[in-house]
Amino acid sequence: MSNEIQIKPIAYIRTALPEKFGVPRQSGLVDGFTGRLELLPEYKDANILRGLSGFSHIWLIWGFSENTGWSATVRPPRLGGNERVGVFASRSPFRPNPLGLSSVKIIDIDESAGIITFSGADMVDNTPVYDIKPYLPYTDSHPEALSGFAKTDKDGDLTVSFSCENPFSKEETDALKGLISQDPRPQYQDDERIYRMTFNNYNIGFFIKDGTATITEIIMLDR
Amino acid sequence: MSNEIQIKPIAYIRTALPEKFGVPRQSGLVDGFTGRLELLPEYKDANILRGLSGFSHIWLIWGFSENTGWSATVRPPRLGGNERVGVFASRSPFRPNPLGLSSVKIIDIDESAGIITFSGADMVDNTPVYDIKPYLPYTDSHPEALSGFAKTDKDGDLTVSFSCENPFSKEETDALKGLISQDPRPQYQDDERIYRMTFNNYNIGFFIKDGTATITEIIMLDR
Repeated sequence: MSNEIQIKPIAYIRTALPEKFGVPRQSGLVDGFTGRLELLPEYKDANILRGLSGFSHIWLIWGFSENTGWSATVRPPRLGGNERVGVFASRSPFRPNPLGLSSVKIIDIDESAGIITFSGADMVDNTPVYDIKPYLPYTDSHPEALSGFAKTDKDGDLTVSFSCENPFSKEETDALKGLISQDPRPQYQDDERIYRMTFNNYNIGFFIKDGTATITEIIMLDR
Repeated sequence: MSNEIQIKPIAYIRTALPEKFGVPRQSGLVDGFTGRLELLPEYKDANILRGLSGFSHIWLIWGFSENTGWSATVRPPRLGGNERVGVFASRSPFRPNPLGLSSVKIIDIDESAGIITFSGADMVDNTPVYDIKPYLPYTDSHPEALSGFAKTDKDGDLTVSFSCENPFSKEETDALKGLISQDPRPQYQDDERIYRMTFNNYNIGFFIKDGTATITEIIMLDR
């Protein structure tokens, strides 16, 4: 029995990060990193979001659209990148079905425009969304759950400072600092090279030393 | 941009309920209603579940395989079946992409056989599963979340008693009573007709009056 099914995007998400580097590893880690979900025209029924304003959080089931392939085991960054666990014991994007799952906090809902703005995003810009569900704490929340090797707190690992001029608004600055504080380096590489990430229309250069990330360069992109 | 993707089952779930009537409306409502997830042969890598035993709960993304079609609004049973809310403000099975989402508690993992036994199921027998993810309380648990019109507690609404002989084990009896205590009647219909559900290899007849469900008939099925 093959039983494949086809699913198609009902919305796309806009965020400040067009590339994967810098995207938080889970939802809710960086409050200031917001997303804007835009329903596709065929789902823009003025009633399709009716009642959602009574909820504070939603689930998004979305697509790791850049990925191809998977393997039975993965090396979680949390384990230093050396130890392997099964893909179904991880939230790795490289899964048999490339579905992401995020609980995010609603900031605003525009029912008639079919737009939901939310905080705690963990997607690149232009991520396809397959489903939106209301978060139901009585069935979805298990604060006592045991989580093996995974992190148990949301705190960023790094403090973040600027050694160059900062062109960003307060909100953008909070988002950018939140993103970098989570240490986006792959597998916790520990060196002082300059890393580069794209944030909105800017290329950001920073290096990390002794628990501090220093942003050294912010270049406006021509696009 | 159409961007449909194909997803295919990585496992199927076995439960005591071959038909939808009686299935809890959410996961975790009836602890005694267990499920047995069986990975399909192509995913039976002995390492694919490695590390999952350190977690107490998992997410399952699965398919409402019996459904066809959806509409922009639905009438949640919780609102008495009269009021409409948007499909994305509900956990209705009739959604643009028929994906279910459940957090269930791990009872046992057999890594080499590719089998996970869990409590708090909310699926019919033979439900296809598209993904398994570990439950991470630091990012998935929001006990303070507001949930609009939804229920806020897991308690069943009914007490359950037998007026006929009970052929079931203690575990089966707990599961059956838990299922019926949730009041499986559609839209909270309030009459005293006999309802029938299939549970394992039995047809169960019961009626509801004054907050009590009385099981009047348990017939072994010939299949």
